[in-house]
Amino acid sequence: MSDPFVVVGGDAAGLSAASKCARESDRDVVVFERGRWVSYAHCGTPYYVKAEVDDLLSLTSLSPDEIDERGIDLRRDHEVTGIDVDAGTVTVRSRSREFEQPYGDLLIATGATADAPFEGTDLEGAFTLHHMDSAAAMRAFLEEPGTVDPASVGDGFADEALVARHAERDPPERAVIVGGGYVGVELAEAFSAWDLDVHLFQRGERLLKPFGDAVGETVADELRERGVTLHLDTPVERLRGTDDGELAAVVCGNEELETPLAAVGVGVRPASDLAAEAGIDLGASGAVAVDEYGETAAESVYAAGDCAEDAHAVTGDQAWVPLGLTANRAGRAVGATVAGDPTPVGTVAGTAVVKAFEQECGRAGILDHDDARETGFEPVSETITAGSRSGYYPGNADTTVTLCADRGSGRLLGGSVVGTDRAAVRIDTVSTALEAGMTVGEVERLDLAYAPPFSPVWDPVLVAAKVLNGTLDEE
Amino acid sequence: MSDPFVVVGGDAAGLSAASKCARESDRDVVVFERGRWVSYAHCGTPYYVKAEVDDLLSLTSLSPDEIDERGIDLRRDHEVTGIDVDAGTVTVRSRSREFEQPYGDLLIATGATADAPFEGTDLEGAFTLHHMDSAAAMRAFLEEPGTVDPASVGDGFADEALVARHAERDPPERAVIVGGGYVGVELAEAFSAWDLDVHLFQRGERLLKPFGDAVGETVADELRERGVTLHLDTPVERLRGTDDGELAAVVCGNEELETPLAAVGVGVRPASDLAAEAGIDLGASGAVAVDEYGETAAESVYAAGDCAEDAHAVTGDQAWVPLGLTANRAGRAVGATVAGDPTPVGTVAGTAVVKAFEQECGRAGILDHDDARETGFEPVSETITAGSRSGYYPGNADTTVTLCADRGSGRLLGGSVVGTDRAAVRIDTVSTALEAGMTVGEVERLDLAYAPPFSPVWDPVLVAAKVLNGTLDEE
Repeated sequence: MSDPFVVVGGDAAGLSAASKCARESDRDVVVFERGRWVSYAHCGTPYYVKAEVDDLLSLTSLSPDEIDERGIDLRRDHEVTGIDVDAGTVTVRSRSREFEQPYGDLLIATGATADAPFEGTDLEGAFTLHHMDSAAAMRAFLEEPGTVDPASVGDGFADEALVARHAERDPPERAVIVGGGYVGVELAEAFSAWDLDVHLFQRGERLLKPFGDAVGETVADELRERGVTLHLDTPVERLRGTDDGELAAVVCGNEELETPLAAVGVGVRPASDLAAEAGIDLGASGAVAVDEYGETAAESVYAAGDCAEDAHAVTGDQAWVPLGLTANRAGRAVGATVAGDPTPVGTVAGTAVVKAFEQECGRAGILDHDDARETGFEPVSETITAGSRSGYYPGNADTTVTLCADRGSGRLLGGSVVGTDRAAVRIDTVSTALEAGMTVGEVERLDLAYAPPFSPVWDPVLVAAKVLNGTLDEE
Repeated sequence: MSDPFVVVGGDAAGLSAASKCARESDRDVVVFERGRWVSYAHCGTPYYVKAEVDDLLSLTSLSPDEIDERGIDLRRDHEVTGIDVDAGTVTVRSRSREFEQPYGDLLIATGATADAPFEGTDLEGAFTLHHMDSAAAMRAFLEEPGTVDPASVGDGFADEALVARHAERDPPERAVIVGGGYVGVELAEAFSAWDLDVHLFQRGERLLKPFGDAVGETVADELRERGVTLHLDTPVERLRGTDDGELAAVVCGNEELETPLAAVGVGVRPASDLAAEAGIDLGASGAVAVDEYGETAAESVYAAGDCAEDAHAVTGDQAWVPLGLTANRAGRAVGATVAGDPTPVGTVAGTAVVKAFEQECGRAGILDHDDARETGFEPVSETITAGSRSGYYPGNADTTVTLCADRGSGRLLGGSVVGTDRAAVRIDTVSTALEAGMTVGEVERLDLAYAPPFSPVWDPVLVAAKVLNGTLDEE
């Protein structure tokens, strides 16, 4: 029997690949996960912190038993510490031993990691994001002391000692968020639901920068209206602790804001060190470079998910776009490929959606003009606000759409949408048009849905295309 | 000065064309409308009947004064009774006179019409649909006597005598709908809101036939759950009246159901008689045949909107797809063309959405296998049900998607969607993919939006594409 398909990392890309390969072939499949959590949706953690989702385990889509039933040899608490691409082996360290594991094919699916961007993120009460244990501890901290049974949180998955320490503390009255990206904005909503005094620090002047100005401004207004204090253009310098090692304050220059709870959502980068140390090429983004099948420069070594690059649908270039669907999809494609059915991992349009209280935000493609020019385009953008439904129909709400196109070719480059009524899913029209390489003129002539309760005659995306097309015609 | 741009019909297509031409050129623009209503959204009438929309006039997007301000010479109560394509004139009849009007360009935008499909539709209390006066009278009938001031309804637009007669009658306790298309389903919701005993008669076994079986079944279940009595496979034979000329009952064979109110939504066809009598070619559908600019076989004579055919995005053939957006869009394109900027009217994907109580339904392209085979395709369909959000996120709801593809080429032919949570707008993904001529494999690899509150990792459309692609691969 040939050497197994070995997967490093037990989350979206890794388990999608393992499941697909196990289903489609009789190869042995081994997954090494250095932690306890597997197959979890960290995108859902803000809603657990908010207590809109009650059971942290419900964020996992497969249990270890279910993974076992799929014929996958899952080893948790097993860290892959090295890859020998010439020998075709990985070095694995568990609690009790270290060993060499040969592979026939290898998938690196190590995800993203949050580097400590400044001093103090290891203080008690300070959390880096995108981690299930952080979510468990934050929620325990927010609940009244004595109401959380640490053993019940994540039932054997979570760091029980960490949860126990936070479950004993008095709930905070203030929460600070550092970083105004997706998770920062989602946590602002989560902490507000606990009636905390919520502060959000953002280094630059805009929230949700990849979503462009129109979305960033709308979301800033929304957060302020909901009582969140925004500190824009305010880089955090460090977190200051008490003598007991608990978080005491967030420090920015000469100012500081006292807080027992801080969520730090900056410093995320691809977890590509393992690949780099094995001599496998990284791309310009620092993520692992791969071909259209997800294969790295090393033979039979693949990379997928948040640690790897993807081909961008608009530019054709490699880009680092760490998001959930594309991680699942790329993993699944690699699983099919190593099972004997070569399957491209597909391109990414950079589609992302996020909820900011009642505002639904979406983005896709290239919105930033500097980014567009760097790729050789001459960008032109228009932003419009139109109704989400017929004007006379109850529930009609302002929907703001930005579309960006290339002046010379008229090709659509990207778009964003924000509004309170079914706004987010409308970005799928833009994503689909981007993947199809449509011009703005073609988008303007799309036959989109119209019925008074759901959309006006001219869908907001069509209105934006009409206006942008007019601008392109003028000059 | 050259002869004017003459438009026959003052609704979506006609006024879109007139407005565009008046804005983009200095041509004289004359619009003849045989009735009183102009620029109205008949798609909104069910919501006026339901009393979710309170002012019938709010369904109009432009008043006669606003139309005048756009430099359009609007003549209401002016019926065009004939076209002389050789002389380049139309015959116009107003209350006081008949005259010949020369045209430089002519647009036929006469819309659709409801033929009386059986005896009795002229009885008091029986209404054919898609008419603003019918909506006004139905609403007056539903209100308590003495509460409606007929002069306040549509303020000079509606048929005041008709409204007055219905405003005086005791409200009905039962309402019958004949026809299970869009408007029939929408009126079932509207009448139910008035707590009536609602019955819907449908000739065939499915509601919303163009939406396919999955949507039809879901909507039938929804209507029954909401207390609507469905009479499927039950063709209505005639409406029986009292000696006073009021509706008494709906008759089906030996059975009859007493009712003072019936809405008849069958027998709709393109209002193409005026064109046909002028010797202008009709298509196989009975609607006016046009080229890609909306021009008919007669020089300088255009047709747009519900009276005209359009090119279908999937088949490339001409088809009759009478819907609001495409009427507006085709009218606007004709207006640009006659103003000197030749503009294609675009293709139609047959996108339609409808609300059935809480169920949101959408369809696009070709779903019916017989239709697909007639056009030379070998259709294969799959239907799946998936979540609208992450499974753990509150509000996650079943969303059923059907996709249909051609076996040989893998090309997407059509799709439908039904569900209670943001289901309808998801059809825009399908419409856009159809206009782009995508294969199911390409749809499966679309980078669609994912965030727990709005969509699961695999959007229901992606799940359907995945399953359908698997089926296509198998054989």
